[in-house]
Amino acid sequence: MTKGNINVSVENIFPLIKKFLYSDHEIFLRELVSNATDATLKLKHLTSIGEAAVDYGNPKIEVKIDKEGKKLHIIDQGIGMTAEEIEKYINQIAFSGAEEFLDKYKDAGKDSGIIGHFGLGFYSAFMVAEKVELISKSYKEGTEAARWTCDGSPEFTLEPAEKTERGTEIILHIAEDSTEFLEESRIRELLTKYNKFMPIPIKFGTKEVNDPDHKPETIKDKDGKETTEPQKKITVDNIINNPNPAWTKQPTELEDKDYNAFYREMYPMQFEEPLFHIHLNVDYPFNLTGILYFPKMSGDLNMQKDKIQLYQNQVYVTDNVEGIVPEFLTMLRGVIDSPDIPLNVSRSYLQADGNVKKISSYITRKVADKLKSLFNENRADFEKKWNDIKVVIEYGMLSEDKFYDKADAFALYPTVDGKYYTYQELFDKIKDNQTDKDGKLVILYASNEDAQHSYTEAAKAKGYEVLLLDSPIVSHLMQKMESSKENITFARVDADHIENLIKKDETKISKLSDEQQKELDAILKEAIPSEKFMVQLEAMDSDASPFIITQPEFMRRMKEMQATGGGGMFGMGNMPEMYNLVVNTNSELVGEILSTKTKKKQERLISQSLDLARLSQGLLKGKELSEFIKRSYEMIK
Amino acid sequence: MTKGNINVSVENIFPLIKKFLYSDHEIFLRELVSNATDATLKLKHLTSIGEAAVDYGNPKIEVKIDKEGKKLHIIDQGIGMTAEEIEKYINQIAFSGAEEFLDKYKDAGKDSGIIGHFGLGFYSAFMVAEKVELISKSYKEGTEAARWTCDGSPEFTLEPAEKTERGTEIILHIAEDSTEFLEESRIRELLTKYNKFMPIPIKFGTKEVNDPDHKPETIKDKDGKETTEPQKKITVDNIINNPNPAWTKQPTELEDKDYNAFYREMYPMQFEEPLFHIHLNVDYPFNLTGILYFPKMSGDLNMQKDKIQLYQNQVYVTDNVEGIVPEFLTMLRGVIDSPDIPLNVSRSYLQADGNVKKISSYITRKVADKLKSLFNENRADFEKKWNDIKVVIEYGMLSEDKFYDKADAFALYPTVDGKYYTYQELFDKIKDNQTDKDGKLVILYASNEDAQHSYTEAAKAKGYEVLLLDSPIVSHLMQKMESSKENITFARVDADHIENLIKKDETKISKLSDEQQKELDAILKEAIPSEKFMVQLEAMDSDASPFIITQPEFMRRMKEMQATGGGGMFGMGNMPEMYNLVVNTNSELVGEILSTKTKKKQERLISQSLDLARLSQGLLKGKELSEFIKRSYEMIK
Repeated sequence: MTKGNINVSVENIFPLIKKFLYSDHEIFLRELVSNATDATLKLKHLTSIGEAAVDYGNPKIEVKIDKEGKKLHIIDQGIGMTAEEIEKYINQIAFSGAEEFLDKYKDAGKDSGIIGHFGLGFYSAFMVAEKVELISKSYKEGTEAARWTCDGSPEFTLEPAEKTERGTEIILHIAEDSTEFLEESRIRELLTKYNKFMPIPIKFGTKEVNDPDHKPETIKDKDGKETTEPQKKITVDNIINNPNPAWTKQPTELEDKDYNAFYREMYPMQFEEPLFHIHLNVDYPFNLTGILYFPKMSGDLNMQKDKIQLYQNQVYVTDNVEGIVPEFLTMLRGVIDSPDIPLNVSRSYLQADGNVKKISSYITRKVADKLKSLFNENRADFEKKWNDIKVVIEYGMLSEDKFYDKADAFALYPTVDGKYYTYQELFDKIKDNQTDKDGKLVILYASNEDAQHSYTEAAKAKGYEVLLLDSPIVSHLMQKMESSKENITFARVDADHIENLIKKDETKISKLSDEQQKELDAILKEAIPSEKFMVQLEAMDSDASPFIITQPEFMRRMKEMQATGGGGMFGMGNMPEMYNLVVNTNSELVGEILSTKTKKKQERLISQSLDLARLSQGLLKGKELSEFIKRSYEMIK
Repeated sequence: MTKGNINVSVENIFPLIKKFLYSDHEIFLRELVSNATDATLKLKHLTSIGEAAVDYGNPKIEVKIDKEGKKLHIIDQGIGMTAEEIEKYINQIAFSGAEEFLDKYKDAGKDSGIIGHFGLGFYSAFMVAEKVELISKSYKEGTEAARWTCDGSPEFTLEPAEKTERGTEIILHIAEDSTEFLEESRIRELLTKYNKFMPIPIKFGTKEVNDPDHKPETIKDKDGKETTEPQKKITVDNIINNPNPAWTKQPTELEDKDYNAFYREMYPMQFEEPLFHIHLNVDYPFNLTGILYFPKMSGDLNMQKDKIQLYQNQVYVTDNVEGIVPEFLTMLRGVIDSPDIPLNVSRSYLQADGNVKKISSYITRKVADKLKSLFNENRADFEKKWNDIKVVIEYGMLSEDKFYDKADAFALYPTVDGKYYTYQELFDKIKDNQTDKDGKLVILYASNEDAQHSYTEAAKAKGYEVLLLDSPIVSHLMQKMESSKENITFARVDADHIENLIKKDETKISKLSDEQQKELDAILKEAIPSEKFMVQLEAMDSDASPFIITQPEFMRRMKEMQATGGGGMFGMGNMPEMYNLVVNTNSELVGEILSTKTKKKQERLISQSLDLARLSQGLLKGKELSEFIKRSYEMIK
């Protein structure tokens, strides 16, 4: 038996890194700026515990393009490296310096905010550079600066250098196929994308600003004319990042205007203010900070996603938070920062990860608590915002049982008259009037005020409350509520005529005798095709509509549920629409239909009444509508 | 100056591979089965050129779960390795065996179908296994089998083994956190996902089938009752893949039913047949095979994407073909197989890659050619399918200029009467009758037959053709056609009254004097709010509608274009709807309005006429509709 060590063939390691380390070449800049940040924070930590006898000062990171020389510089004023340290940290691939440092200063790791995840990132420079130079001077007194160069082959050179200032400068000699990274606009774009909120100021070029020490004087010339001298300008560093973003602060340090300002910083193209925010801040059993915003929602749910950004220690990672944030909250905006979310793992693995599950339910709980306190503190304002947030809340109630339970305290049920009830309030309000003879509470609703207007009016005439439930997923939510609350049922106002929707123990007397009803039934059935409408004679108020078209609740809702993704009953989606024609035997017009002597007039009465009933339900269209209109023009002359 | 070699620290290489090689752990199985396929195809090639003196036979790859032993086996009957070869290929990470082989047998590479891209894949085994065993016996005569084991540390052992059959067996000792890969259902899922069309049969378990040599006999018992003896079953290998998928064959070998059968193989959950297919087959200047299918499209364009699968030499890679297939064709289904598409690169890089650009325009051309030949060969059938394919074609015409030019030959313009014209046919048909007095050809269309029925009828009464253009993006396409074809304009039938839509050199005589017109104008303007309708008196046919509500084309189309993503003019999306009220001064009813003596009757005539005009344009809703219906019930009594 032979024993041996697997040999990593160095000739092939660079292509490997280039090919597999990151699929996106642009990542190199994030990695190098992260390393520079790291080196600076290490020094900060060492000075703070008295292990580095240097002045920490106000260090910056500088990114500089040398377009002519085809070079990109990344310069920090951090801890620096001696030649020996370069040998150790740079020449040994897959030997993470950050890891060793963290081992040594275990407890310090978190507070000093070191980006420990990117130990391998330095080599990503070779994805875009044909040659990399590294010039470094350690913070340690009496050490010499060193220059390391490597052209992407495994051979490197290491020699003394002239550098007098503490820190590391990386010089990328950009390769022919990567000259995009010599464009100012491209580098600006990348720094903005990945490093916008990193904790050390990043200088990228300079800018002119008004000299704060110069107040322009107004002088009179000889004619007495006043002129103001030009404002003196000075050139200052252009700092591209905000090293102290709102989410790293304590909620107590921030006011509403600070949260809104940060929202605009994250979404400069958004003109509308967010509705409200939720500050996340937890350090046990996992570490997570962040701010979530409820934006105004538009109708298209899919357009809203991918607006939450995920950071790790202020470094941008991704805008795909699927699996980390519960799905119904991916419609929110904002930022989440957590070193405890594993990266580079599959989404299915992520969803099974215990920490991630805890994070997800923590976020859900925080959102529910915030909604509850908003509701309690300013109900009027909460009602005003309801229409813009209801989709998220209703979706959450459907998909997360814990959220469903909590939502009872703040979920609102608006009426067509602009009132807003909680479920309990609604229940108390309607339980006497809207409980039917079998003891079932019937909650009436319209899905569209315009389309169901006449039906809504009929219900209101009885003193009933009619909710306005118009979200795309509301049929699923009703289904859930009917099975979780006792003895309630939802019915759309056009599901039957109003006296059938909530059946009371009253019997209406029909003006027509049984004989007459039989006759009427025969007349109607002859004139109205049975495959289109089921005729149903009812003794109603004499001033209620003569003809009413209704659509049974169950069937319609099953179809809607299938159409909005899942649920319902299999195959229902393809069933034809089903309508009933309720005929009010007590209406004058129906009496006239029965008593009319000429067949022709009878037919005209029936067809015009049916057209009006269809119009009321939105069923009169195209050719039939054109003909109805033509006939009506004739009639008004 | 020091020179030296970068040292890859082997202790850290395994974590590196585990973390960075693939973000999805499940990939290991694809890699190992690819290697097994590779080893088998290598042997096939060597035997075919007489360099291996063995019988190639019908080699299989076997995947076997040993749940109790927590092991997963992958066994091939390929080329095998000697201990020396294991030392060379396995112990030297990043030394791709496939590469060396391809160098040696350059020309053979393509034909023998070797999966050269995955040389590093073997190590992905350590993503899921705590220990990996490899037992191999080379095809070379007189060589000994060898066993290699490694527990994820860089130390390995290599020793002689007992194996007598040619080939390699990999045994993964599955790690605690990866026991999902000991589940039969999970492995079956992965083999189906990644290896369904790989070129060597893959055995996964066994199954019972009827014994083909046994025909059950029917025997009479003593009572004369007939019974059939039970069918004998035999156990056979369960082959999980189809090694010869349709796209690897020549189009001449396949009939429609073969293409449809392959469609069902790819999309077993799809019940509908595809409308037609396009076989891709090119080997210069790049290598690409594949079959694309046009499915029946539903309304939601986004639902349709991610249905094309990308393969490399029959190994599944991804179902995201963004950047490879032109966007308008991502709504199709099917498979593309090309070794020339770079993987593991960013999408932006992909879009800039010359090869990929060529592939994309090749696919576009092939699709256009196929559509043209379908149109030419069976126009009736093409017309029948038009509604299901028009979205793709119209989207292609909008987004790819080359496709736009080619589409002139087959893009259809359907009329409300169910006729289908090409642009040239339409032009020839309508140019005499629908050219206005300024020489502009006016193409009339409806976007909804029902909603614009009365307007369509008015246009047809003039002998005009009315197209039915109802795709969501058609306003963009009209805009493009108006600017690329000479002197044409599109107008929706309700954009004005029909005599204004196509202005001829005829002057209609108004029955009303100028005086009377002035009077009428004053009466109407008093009754009708100017912020809702611009009143416009017109002398039209006396039997045309008295009141017509129109919506100017330009404004409406700009709004529509903004609503369907981009285009239009900035800010138009938020403009209110604008309507004109055309009043036909020659209609009898309008004459009556003017001559009516009582103010009250006049108002009633105007309001009822306006309601009817609004009804015709779908503008009468809610409360106003309810009241209109109530009034109308009164009127018919």
